[in-house]
Amino acid sequence: MAGNSFGQLFRITTFGESHGVAIGVIIDGCPAQLDIDMDFIQSELDKRKPGQSKITTQRKESDTVQVLSGIFEGKSTGTPIALLIPNEDQRSKDYGHNVDVYRPSHADYVYDVKYGIRDHRGGGRSSARETAARVAAGAIAKLFLKQQGIEIFAHVTGVGTIEAPNLESNDLSTLLQIREENIVRCADPATAHEMVEFIDAIRKDGDTVGGKISCVVKGCPAGLGEPVFDKLHADLGKAMLSINAVHGFEYGSGFAGSELRGSQHNDIPQPKAAGSKVFKTTTNYAGGILGGISNGMDITFKVAFKPVATIMHNQQTINAAGEAAEIKGKGRHDPCVVPRAVVIVEAMAALVLADQFLRNKVSTL
Amino acid sequence: MAGNSFGQLFRITTFGESHGVAIGVIIDGCPAQLDIDMDFIQSELDKRKPGQSKITTQRKESDTVQVLSGIFEGKSTGTPIALLIPNEDQRSKDYGHNVDVYRPSHADYVYDVKYGIRDHRGGGRSSARETAARVAAGAIAKLFLKQQGIEIFAHVTGVGTIEAPNLESNDLSTLLQIREENIVRCADPATAHEMVEFIDAIRKDGDTVGGKISCVVKGCPAGLGEPVFDKLHADLGKAMLSINAVHGFEYGSGFAGSELRGSQHNDIPQPKAAGSKVFKTTTNYAGGILGGISNGMDITFKVAFKPVATIMHNQQTINAAGEAAEIKGKGRHDPCVVPRAVVIVEAMAALVLADQFLRNKVSTL
Amino acid sequence: MAGNSFGQLFRITTFGESHGVAIGVIIDGCPAQLDIDMDFIQSELDKRKPGQSKITTQRKESDTVQVLSGIFEGKSTGTPIALLIPNEDQRSKDYGHNVDVYRPSHADYVYDVKYGIRDHRGGGRSSARETAARVAAGAIAKLFLKQQGIEIFAHVTGVGTIEAPNLESNDLSTLLQIREENIVRCADPATAHEMVEFIDAIRKDGDTVGGKISCVVKGCPAGLGEPVFDKLHADLGKAMLSINAVHGFEYGSGFAGSELRGSQHNDIPQPKAAGSKVFKTTTNYAGGILGGISNGMDITFKVAFKPVATIMHNQQTINAAGEAAEIKGKGRHDPCVVPRAVVIVEAMAALVLADQFLRNKVSTL
Amino acid sequence: MAGNSFGQLFRITTFGESHGVAIGVIIDGCPAQLDIDMDFIQSELDKRKPGQSKITTQRKESDTVQVLSGIFEGKSTGTPIALLIPNEDQRSKDYGHNVDVYRPSHADYVYDVKYGIRDHRGGGRSSARETAARVAAGAIAKLFLKQQGIEIFAHVTGVGTIEAPNLESNDLSTLLQIREENIVRCADPATAHEMVEFIDAIRKDGDTVGGKISCVVKGCPAGLGEPVFDKLHADLGKAMLSINAVHGFEYGSGFAGSELRGSQHNDIPQPKAAGSKVFKTTTNYAGGILGGISNGMDITFKVAFKPVATIMHNQQTINAAGEAAEIKGKGRHDPCVVPRAVVIVEAMAALVLADQFLRNKVSTL
Repeated sequence: MAGNSFGQLFRITTFGESHGVAIGVIIDGCPAQLDIDMDFIQSELDKRKPGQSKITTQRKESDTVQVLSGIFEGKSTGTPIALLIPNEDQRSKDYGHNVDVYRPSHADYVYDVKYGIRDHRGGGRSSARETAARVAAGAIAKLFLKQQGIEIFAHVTGVGTIEAPNLESNDLSTLLQIREENIVRCADPATAHEMVEFIDAIRKDGDTVGGKISCVVKGCPAGLGEPVFDKLHADLGKAMLSINAVHGFEYGSGFAGSELRGSQHNDIPQPKAAGSKVFKTTTNYAGGILGGISNGMDITFKVAFKPVATIMHNQQTINAAGEAAEIKGKGRHDPCVVPRAVVIVEAMAALVLADQFLRNKVSTL
Repeated sequence: MAGNSFGQLFRITTFGESHGVAIGVIIDGCPAQLDIDMDFIQSELDKRKPGQSKITTQRKESDTVQVLSGIFEGKSTGTPIALLIPNEDQRSKDYGHNVDVYRPSHADYVYDVKYGIRDHRGGGRSSARETAARVAAGAIAKLFLKQQGIEIFAHVTGVGTIEAPNLESNDLSTLLQIREENIVRCADPATAHEMVEFIDAIRKDGDTVGGKISCVVKGCPAGLGEPVFDKLHADLGKAMLSINAVHGFEYGSGFAGSELRGSQHNDIPQPKAAGSKVFKTTTNYAGGILGGISNGMDITFKVAFKPVATIMHNQQTINAAGEAAEIKGKGRHDPCVVPRAVVIVEAMAALVLADQFLRNKVSTL
Repeated sequence: MAGNSFGQLFRITTFGESHGVAIGVIIDGCPAQLDIDMDFIQSELDKRKPGQSKITTQRKESDTVQVLSGIFEGKSTGTPIALLIPNEDQRSKDYGHNVDVYRPSHADYVYDVKYGIRDHRGGGRSSARETAARVAAGAIAKLFLKQQGIEIFAHVTGVGTIEAPNLESNDLSTLLQIREENIVRCADPATAHEMVEFIDAIRKDGDTVGGKISCVVKGCPAGLGEPVFDKLHADLGKAMLSINAVHGFEYGSGFAGSELRGSQHNDIPQPKAAGSKVFKTTTNYAGGILGGISNGMDITFKVAFKPVATIMHNQQTINAAGEAAEIKGKGRHDPCVVPRAVVIVEAMAALVLADQFLRNKVSTL
Repeated sequence: MAGNSFGQLFRITTFGESHGVAIGVIIDGCPAQLDIDMDFIQSELDKRKPGQSKITTQRKESDTVQVLSGIFEGKSTGTPIALLIPNEDQRSKDYGHNVDVYRPSHADYVYDVKYGIRDHRGGGRSSARETAARVAAGAIAKLFLKQQGIEIFAHVTGVGTIEAPNLESNDLSTLLQIREENIVRCADPATAHEMVEFIDAIRKDGDTVGGKISCVVKGCPAGLGEPVFDKLHADLGKAMLSINAVHGFEYGSGFAGSELRGSQHNDIPQPKAAGSKVFKTTTNYAGGILGGISNGMDITFKVAFKPVATIMHNQQTINAAGEAAEIKGKGRHDPCVVPRAVVIVEAMAALVLADQFLRNKVSTL
């Protein structure tokens, strides 16, 4: 069983290589009658597309999405939605150096071992270009969730050792506006400025740097998540870890929470306000999830990205025969992936939540 | 689609409540002809069972495993292996206080919301007792992996703010021996001593504390993991996050890696020794996984556990009607889960690797 | 991926061998809050159990079902329901003759080829004893469907060349009463009498005979079934074909319909009665299903069973070495499976309908 | 969980509507390194395409297949293979009459009920045009199977009451040649002639007629099929029943076998020839499958197709409001689907066998 599908009821299958004809996605299980706002889908893709600022790769792709099926007169029909994103600026000759030499910390070698054949052009299927398909599908999941009153917001909270303050209790539309006013997509302007300066220096150095993205989900009803293996945070964790370059995931109190005592960490429930169905706790170390099921509080998690492996320095490596070789820094890559990855994190979160929302509809009679 | 199954080809389904008749697991997809060492399975369960030392819960369960099907004359037959673990010391009356009052940071409330009905005795299905079934299944996965030369070792590397040194390059059998010589299951004796003292003090305080477990997989061939969603580390992450109380997962360089530069973080491949098929890198920030596929180096990851929510203090909370209530500290619980969780982490890792091992068998002609 | 699970949302996994400790089933995905009538479940098992009349096998099994999990205070909780049926009358020594010699038209040989190991006692996993687990799970599916107003009725409509008249438009409770008044389970008394006489003669002859079962589903709402692969009749067909000894499935007009013209075969819709949401057609060649989706008419299908392979005659065969051998007629088997298979057909139909009912709940916003 | 995917390890997902932009298929799980013969894929599509003779629909579609991903330098890479077939001759205005009026024995009504929205143009997703995607994917499955020595052959054996003789023991390449020499695709020339005459008369009458297709699989090794639910014939049955217009499936002795005695029906194994691993039986009532697992003999099955519902006569029906309406015979449709369905039957059989072949690779250590 190959691994190109994600989700159970709201299920996507992506396809396509970095320098092939096109990439795309099939969404099977999107409920019928959903209004599909194509402009919104395109605007999401625009946040991920290359070449959008000086701190992203200069590859040029318009990433224009086409609908092949599943949408009729502006609405989903319940049949598979197929979305296609043609590849334009393939410039595959840049990758001639990549045929027989393994780039350090890239997937070249393991694809060769696993499949005995590899589309070497731009990393083929291992390229993060595949995530454009996820963003397109995630945009439809967001449209579905918005109808249910669920909103998702992510922003860059770490670049190298620069950390942003915790802003997740703020108003989401304000945060979103601030985030989109800077090219690093951090919702704190001062930190954003510092991050941009740092990434730009790294870029001039021919180097790259890692970072972190934090995400909050607001308006999620209690009850989402399927014990015992498909806990909501387990599905979110898998979704995030499946994004290129991600090396860590934590939710709620995360790693820091493991250093606390129970008497510090327990979130104390507050009596419900009259007429309210919403349960609140004084703190939210749980990150909105108890026993793998959402409890109605904000869902919070953080994702760690390693630095991009492609650097503009020459590096020692080996060739396909296992002999020493040198690889030169070439190609067009991001000095830091997190600015473009913000919308990927949101998309994967949306796909998990849409899926778990549907799954929860059959929990009871 | 409820979430009580895990794995695609080596697939388990667990069942059972904390204070019901029994818990158990069905393994569907264990290859035929595997020698099943029942003593080994029982010894694994013994490492997880309650009441094994002063720093674990005093609930008494022998956790004796019974085979119902799938094993004939000591070997797997390819048919479903059903394993049953009867519940013995149920003492459900301890949980009368739990019927209408929601324990802080427990799943009581969310089960009520999701299902409209809840087996309140000892947490029912949300109890970590369910993980005994995983350990039993994981033991069979370990037997399968051992045949393939794959070994898994986990130990406690954090309790509160106490941290163990990195030992993963050491010999596994030595580490295992040291680990089992102390009740906290840390492979560094000095740190272990400190951890035990600390947990015991916490316990006397009626409190609990979180911790961390590190795991290393040795002998894993290159090629395991399915791009793009079922990356090896994504499956490992989901597996770990599905364990009760886990709030974080990182592999290889993890969160710390997100602060590094590419020129620091890239693992440089070394020329292969003559005749060797094994690929080595000077460093292992990748944690043995590139592009979601194992590269033949040690696989390393770390898991963060929050403190146990049940403390022996009285706490404010609410009842099912949403009104203020107080809950008293009662029941028999662990002051720190990590000593008993070591074997659960190993079991879940084994289940992922066995599954991905089988999946990889159909990657090429 | 082994094949011991069935269904997507209402999903069962069965386990157990004919002469092992027990057989059983896990139901994952039964909605919470369903009233579970254990007497009904047992009464369904009693219709399948061996030894119930002179025309069934004389193996004695009480087939008493035990609940291990998932039911609390008489209701489903949304967690996995585990049901266990211990094996009692195993008399495995009857099967000593079966170790090295392949019984004609049995699965002995193919299990040996596929798995390289075989639990030869009574056919092991290939025994129709496994279907008791399906009947137990199917009984719970029936309880769920009954709440939705959906009823399922099957009866024997063929034994050898004896055919029963078409009765499916009759009142189901009357048909059920008549069916249970005769040991062959045909709802037409005269045909039933003829069938019983014939099977009894076959039995005295040491021979066996095949038969057919017809099934009707009443009260099924329009909309069940998932295009394009999981059409309602495709799932029903797979369910039926997965029952031991089944060699054919047809629905609605079936094979005979393939000889008709479109102008004969089209079912003409009738104008809806005022206030009615029900769509009716003058004929029902469609068998209640159009394009794989139920249309609100009665769902009708027929299942063909081959004769039982175990006969009380000596037969030529081969042994495990491929050499000529003779096998003697031994063991306790049914001269004709259809009387006991009626409730299996109903159970599998119920499992398909419960699953598709839940799946349809997420078709639209 | 919507139903647009088929298979577990060799898994396809189809998309597209009859009169949308395009239809297509993603194959996830095709093993790497398979030589992909695009001419062969196109030749398979040509056998299904409309307008190929006087007895098929006159809609004109070249059904030219395009590769979007998963194939590199003529070989599969192990990544998802995406195939696209643009729609050309959409002529949607022909379907204006179909918007508010339900065509008898079509899926219009049930799509409206299920989804509350319907792409009415040419039946949208319910059109048999979707099966072109299956044929493209099935062609790749055939290439894989051919490498394993497995061949599949189907031909028309029934049109109305005209029946072809049983030819399945003949040489496949000869049968194939004869089959392709006539437009009805029956491998017996005399019967073929009779069938063509009959269909042409039906066509002139503005009517349609049903038919049957028989299929044989040669060279299949013993061991394919997964007990107990995913029996080989259960998967084949589901595959066939998922094809538009199919109302019945039988394998081996089928419905006729249910009238026989065990002493007649048992297939007697013959001693193996020296050095042979192949098991043979004197007869093959089993249809090459015992206990759901292939036994090495020819696999045989038969599929029944109802007559096409669209006829060139005016018919009574109802409109969306449930009121009486008349529908006129319009559009371009086949008088009998079986000539074009032969390659669809083969394709679905190939998909089942490729999937079960891969699944069997993990049955044992």
